[in-house]
Order: sequence, then structure tokens, then C-alpha cells
Amino acid sequence: MSRSRQDKIRLGVFLYPTGHHVAGWRHPEAAADAGTNFRHYVELAQTAERGKFDLLFLSDSSALRGAEHLESLSRIASRSVFLEPLTLLPALAAVTSHIGLVATATSTYNEPYALARKFATLDHISGGRAGWNLITSNNEAEAQNFSRDKHPEHADRYDRAQEFAAVVARLWDSWDDDAFLRDKSSGVFFDQDKLHFLNHRGEHFSVKGPLNVARPPQGHPVQVQAGASEAGRDLAAQFAEVVFTAQSSIAGARDFYADVKSRAAAYDRAPEDIKIMPGFSTVVGASATEAAEKHAQLQELLDPVVGLSLLSAMLGNVDLSGADIDGPLPELPATNAGKGRQALLVEAARRDKLTIRDLYKQVAGARGHHAVHGTASQIADELESWFLEEAADGFNIMPAVLPAGLNDFVDHVVPELQRRGLFRREYEGRTLRDNLGLKRPQSYFASKPGKTD
Amino acid sequence: MSRSRQDKIRLGVFLYPTGHHVAGWRHPEAAADAGTNFRHYVELAQTAERGKFDLLFLSDSSALRGAEHLESLSRIASRSVFLEPLTLLPALAAVTSHIGLVATATSTYNEPYALARKFATLDHISGGRAGWNLITSNNEAEAQNFSRDKHPEHADRYDRAQEFAAVVARLWDSWDDDAFLRDKSSGVFFDQDKLHFLNHRGEHFSVKGPLNVARPPQGHPVQVQAGASEAGRDLAAQFAEVVFTAQSSIAGARDFYADVKSRAAAYDRAPEDIKIMPGFSTVVGASATEAAEKHAQLQELLDPVVGLSLLSAMLGNVDLSGADIDGPLPELPATNAGKGRQALLVEAARRDKLTIRDLYKQVAGARGHHAVHGTASQIADELESWFLEEAADGFNIMPAVLPAGLNDFVDHVVPELQRRGLFRREYEGRTLRDNLGLKRPQSYFASKPGKTD
Repeated sequence: MSRSRQDKIRLGVFLYPTGHHVAGWRHPEAAADAGTNFRHYVELAQTAERGKFDLLFLSDSSALRGAEHLESLSRIASRSVFLEPLTLLPALAAVTSHIGLVATATSTYNEPYALARKFATLDHISGGRAGWNLITSNNEAEAQNFSRDKHPEHADRYDRAQEFAAVVARLWDSWDDDAFLRDKSSGVFFDQDKLHFLNHRGEHFSVKGPLNVARPPQGHPVQVQAGASEAGRDLAAQFAEVVFTAQSSIAGARDFYADVKSRAAAYDRAPEDIKIMPGFSTVVGASATEAAEKHAQLQELLDPVVGLSLLSAMLGNVDLSGADIDGPLPELPATNAGKGRQALLVEAARRDKLTIRDLYKQVAGARGHHAVHGTASQIADELESWFLEEAADGFNIMPAVLPAGLNDFVDHVVPELQRRGLFRREYEGRTLRDNLGLKRPQSYFASKPGKTD
Repeated sequence: MSRSRQDKIRLGVFLYPTGHHVAGWRHPEAAADAGTNFRHYVELAQTAERGKFDLLFLSDSSALRGAEHLESLSRIASRSVFLEPLTLLPALAAVTSHIGLVATATSTYNEPYALARKFATLDHISGGRAGWNLITSNNEAEAQNFSRDKHPEHADRYDRAQEFAAVVARLWDSWDDDAFLRDKSSGVFFDQDKLHFLNHRGEHFSVKGPLNVARPPQGHPVQVQAGASEAGRDLAAQFAEVVFTAQSSIAGARDFYADVKSRAAAYDRAPEDIKIMPGFSTVVGASATEAAEKHAQLQELLDPVVGLSLLSAMLGNVDLSGADIDGPLPELPATNAGKGRQALLVEAARRDKLTIRDLYKQVAGARGHHAVHGTASQIADELESWFLEEAADGFNIMPAVLPAGLNDFVDHVVPELQRRGLFRREYEGRTLRDNLGLKRPQSYFASKPGKTD
């Protein structure tokens, strides 16, 4: 355990509209209209800020997911409609003052110039609180909304993502921090020598620049990444400052943590330049029994149509429609998709003698993330051990039901972590970088002569 | 004059960062840091809402304009850096409650699915106050930021724009207004029959849909258009609900007004379905003399380098560097670009015996829009006559200096218009459509059977 006593847990909250349990929207304390309700997000953001969270995080998709199973989809709240993250976050910036604001945006269906402008503007509006979770999209349906015949292959997507991220970072450096003189008496608004043209000509993009937004207060918005593949880990080691990850055990999380941090050296980066934050699905109770009952109540609300379609998708789209859901999993046909996941589920079902219903309940709550149900003290124990044993620098909290689950966490788990000296009582600074303890990046052009046009 | 006594002037304010006079940023009352200062925009939006304005409007460009004349550009505040409109407006939505929020966005370098999501989200966040000013871009430099060899031709851009606007409108109709049941007890979240796939396959776009944002509160955000060419007027007649236009005389404005409204009939639209709002560049004074002095002070702040480059651009990029700025315009070489504008300026210079300095001062303030400098009563007279004589349904006010010029207008001109019964004292409704008196559009799918997949 090499943690210094000054080191603190970082906390993010993943705001999935009605909460992360797939049946959470049916809970009496869930805001079922979350996907169209701005006030819901204002309440969540202000609650998380009251709890001194480092950041809030929004995922994204540029297509309806699961449209091939409409009967099941029509019973799920969080996947049909939701507010677009890069439009929602500026509005939340206006009603908060310290919490970081992280939006997901794909490099596959965006242009670097347009995205660089938006994140730079969000950073200005929020006074330095923006973060960008770069994804390459894994949703075939997006291609059909963007005039493409098919979704590009994994390797192509990562190749494009790497060039995309580099172009965006350099665009943010178009103007030096002190480029704007705004000298009313002489009439000189900016110093021409502090403006830089990019003149990028790469395999995927040609971008002349400069960006028409001033350098962001943070230099660059915080770069977030969540890819778990080999290419994703390398991209994270090269560019990411925060890594979100789904880890179901502390052992696996420790391996992932060590692997990503060791890869960073190849890119001249220190281990502390990357903060690793696994997702934790939480249900908080006044007693362990109450927490278990809360979770059981959610599992009761899970519609078999929904459970079966989720399980079927996880097993590689096998047809379970004829099977008895209170019987064992039938022998499955061979499948090409998701072989690893299928094998794990089949093994667990055999080992623990699970019925189909048991099995789909297992996948419905945490979506592959670590699930912790218990008292504030029990949850704090779990966070503490993952943190101290270097399985995590912090956590991306995923309440099962929103807004209730976030209130529970802020009112009960945060004070417990503060009592233990593991979490801040006040924000250290005003920017997301300040609070995460990340360096402000130097400009790409700092060592280059004047403008490069 | 066919105006009914109930009919009222519509007012928008065009928030050009430091104001519309090119030297306005040097004025003691200008916020020279407007391009990076979110609080400046909060103040402007709240002032305009205090003045019961229908809407505020932001222009846009996806490139630095005028980079070929850096010496001049470095002396202009509003063109180098500014906050991206679709990121700024959601933040302003969070701190206002009634004013409409109109962002410019190009159809040339965007994708319809992405833009439809953003405007629909802005409409949800603002409770029905979003508007979209569709442009096709006239800025060659944008192509170089979007991996294109050259900017597409005018006809191609308008062809794409037309298909773009139709796709966006249908995407907004993806879900019927009452599609979301959110029935916690039955577990049914949405009614499958009220979800519509677009399955669009056109010349420029293939978009399957549906949009993953619920139908906007206004049905569709208000559609704004500003193109003055034949293609632009036709696009306006077909799609636009608000038309912004630069008109330097009431006679020209009346012709334009009549022309656009008459074209609407060809698309089964009534004249009142389109609100025509010319830009008015304003300087308000306590007396006519004070207003003239205010304007003269701005003209004094205009740097000859800036004035000459603006004039040169307006004359079709002719080189004026050797000429005496206090002498007459020299004989000009023939030019291919901007012939019409060149001829008008040359004619005015000969007729009024203007020096080069006189001439560039004329173009620096209002950028082709009608300029009114005077007392609140004089400005109200001008607005009243344009309105009553059907040269305008309303005006897009362009203060020379911000924030001071907007304060002057709201504190002095608005009360005068209210006294005359020409302008509202309270907002009529909560949405931009309510206030403008525009119909809520019926869904494209209203007369179609269920889902079209």
C-alpha cells in the first residue's frame, strides 16, 4: 500500500436518467420522466455538488439502442430518449459552481473542429470544469443515422480516434493563454504572434485552424476514456487523465489499474497523471437488511420480457423465448458474438444452479459493474479497500434509482468517507483539474516559433 | 396599412460579442472580453428578458474570418474568438425563463441527426424557447477546418440545406407528443405505436431514425432563415417562420417583405406564418445631439487599418494600401467578386463626394443594416413606420456597443413602444411560438399509420 495519507478518493456520479437498475424507473422514488426533465438534472447536479463530488458524468449514444427488440425496449426508461449531453452540461454549468462536467462524445461521427469548439466553450462557461469522455461508439445503429452503410471496424475507429484526439488538443492550443491584449487605447485586440495555425494534414483529417474559441481555462478540458480493449487501454495510457472502467472484482481491478498505469510510461507519463475510477453500482440502506430489501424490491419490478432480452443479448442474441424462466439455462447453440461473456454466464449458472430468472436478475442491476448493497459503513469499507489496495483512485458512483439513490449516497456514505479522512470536506480549487490534482497541460506551440502559417 | 390594432412589434436582439460597431469594443462601456465572458451574456440575456424581447440571436462561423488580413483582424474584437452558440444558449436557458433562444447552425458542415438532437434538447431544457437559424455558410475558410478541399457551390449548398431541414423536422416528429406513458404499475414506458422510424434515403443523407430525444415542447423549434438570394428566399418561403434580413431603406424592405410573403403561398403557407425582422443598428441618446456624438465617438475609435480592410473586402478585395485615405476613391480595377456592392459604394462615393475615410466609416457601423441614431422617440418613430407600412413584422436590434447599447434600448425605447401600444408589457406565453404568435406544427406522422419500419 503506497497511498500517502494526503491522497483522497475521487468521486464521480454517473447520471443515467432514472438510475442504473433497468427497472429503477418503476420505483416510487424514481423520476420516470428523467429523459425530458431538466429540473431533475439540476437537482442531481446540485446534490452531487453538495456532496463535494469531483464530477458528474453523462454517457451518450447517437441512435436508439435496442430497437430490434421494441417490446422489451418499450419497458425500459433510460434508453429511448434522453437529453443530449453537450447541450445539457452547459445548462448545468450555469446552476453549479464547483462540480466537474464530463460529457461523452464519439470520435466516429463528429468532426474535431466542431467538438473542440464545444468543449472549449463549455470550459469557458463553467470556469474550467469541462471533461470529455472520448468514445469510438459500439453501436451499429449510429451508422444508419449518419448516412453510412455500416459502422467502421474497431481498428479503424481507434486509428481515427487517436488522430481526432491529437487534432482537438492542438486546436485548443490555437491561442496562447495571454494572446488577448484587449488594449482599448492602442486598439490592439490580440497579439498576432500568439495565434497559431494548425495546418494539420493527416490520414483522417485536414484541419487548418486556428480554433475560433480562446484557450480553455484548464488549458485542455480533462480527457476521459473508458475503452477496455487493448487499443482502448493504449489510447487511455497515451491521452486519458481519467479512466472509467467496469470491474466486478478487486483482483481484476488491481490488474487493470497496474496495467494502464504501467503503459503510461511508454508515453512519458507518470502513473499519477491518470486517475482510474471503476463504476460502483450502489444501494444504500439504514441497515444491511434494509439495503437488501431495497434491492429485492427493484428486482421484483424487473419485467421478464426485459430480463430475457437483456440476458439474450448478453448471451450473444440466443433465443430464450421457449424456455421456462424458472428452470435452468438450456444448452446453447454456438455463437460468434460475446463468446467470453456467454462462457462466464453459463459457468456461473451451472456452478450456482441458477434459473434463467436468477441469471437475468444478475445482469439487470449493475450492467457488469461492481454492485455494493449495504449500510453507509459497509459501502465505505468497500471503497476504502479498493482505494488503499490500488484497485482504484476513485469511483464513478452509479445509483440504482435517481434521484433517491444519489441523495442516500451524499447524505450517508460521503460523511462516513469524510470521517475516515478519505474524502474532501471542501473543494480544493475551482477547476476540475485542481480538484482531481491534474496538471494544466502546456501548449503544443509553447516550444514552437510564432504562428506556423 | 392592414395591421390590426392587436398586432404587436416583435423584438429580437442580435448579440454580437462586444456590439455591432467594428470599433465598439474600444468604447469605455464595452465588455472587451465578451468573447470569453459567460457573465456578460447572462447580463445581456436577463436585460433583454427584462425588456420583454421575443428572442435573442447568435450568429456563427466555424472558422476564423479574415485571417488573410491578420494586421486588421488583430484590431477587431468580435471576429477572433467567441463562445459557440449551441453551447452558450443552454447555459442562458438555465438563467432565463421567457426569452427565445436562437442559434445559427450551418447545414453544410453538420449532420442532421446530431443537430436535431441538440435543438430538441435545447427546446426541452428551455421549456420551448429554442429557434434555429439555418445557414449554408458563406465562409470558404470553413472547408479547410472540415477536411474538404473547397467550400461547396451555392446551388449545392442550398440543395443540401433543403434536404437537411426536411430530415431534421421529421426527426423531431419521431415520437408522438403522447408517446411516453411512464406507467410504473404496468411497466410500460412508451407506446410502440407512437414511435416512428424515418427511413429517409435522399440525395445527401440516409437517416433511419428515430431521434433519441422526445418531441420538443414546441413540436419543432422555431425555424429562422436569413438568406437573401433567390434560393435563400425560396428556402425561407418554404421553411422559415422568422426571417432576418439586412435592409437599408424602407422601400427595399417593403419589396422584400411582400416578395417573401407572396412566395409562401406556393408552399401552402399563410403570410402570417412568416415573421420578417430586419436588422436595425441602434445608438440611443437622451437628445439627438447626444446620439450623434455617441456615434461620432465610435467612428473616431475606428482604426484606419481596420476601416481600409473592411472597405477593401466590400469592394471585392481591391488593394487600397497606396491611396490617400482623405482623398477620393481611385479608379478601381474590374473585379469578379461583389460587383453589385462595389457599384453601389462607388456610386455613393461619387454622388456624395466621399473620401475613403468617409466611405469606410459608412460600412464599419451597421454592416449593411439600417442604422438609426437618435432619441428613444425618434427610434420608436422609425420602428413604428416600418412596422405599420409592412416593411417589417419586427426587428432584430443590433446595439453598436454591448452591454451599454442594449441597456439604453431596454430602458428608453421599449417603454416608448409600450406607451404607443406597439409592444407587449408582459409575455403572452411561455414558449417562443406563443410569444411570436406562431402555430405549433402538426407531426409529419400524424396522418401516417403507426411505425413505418
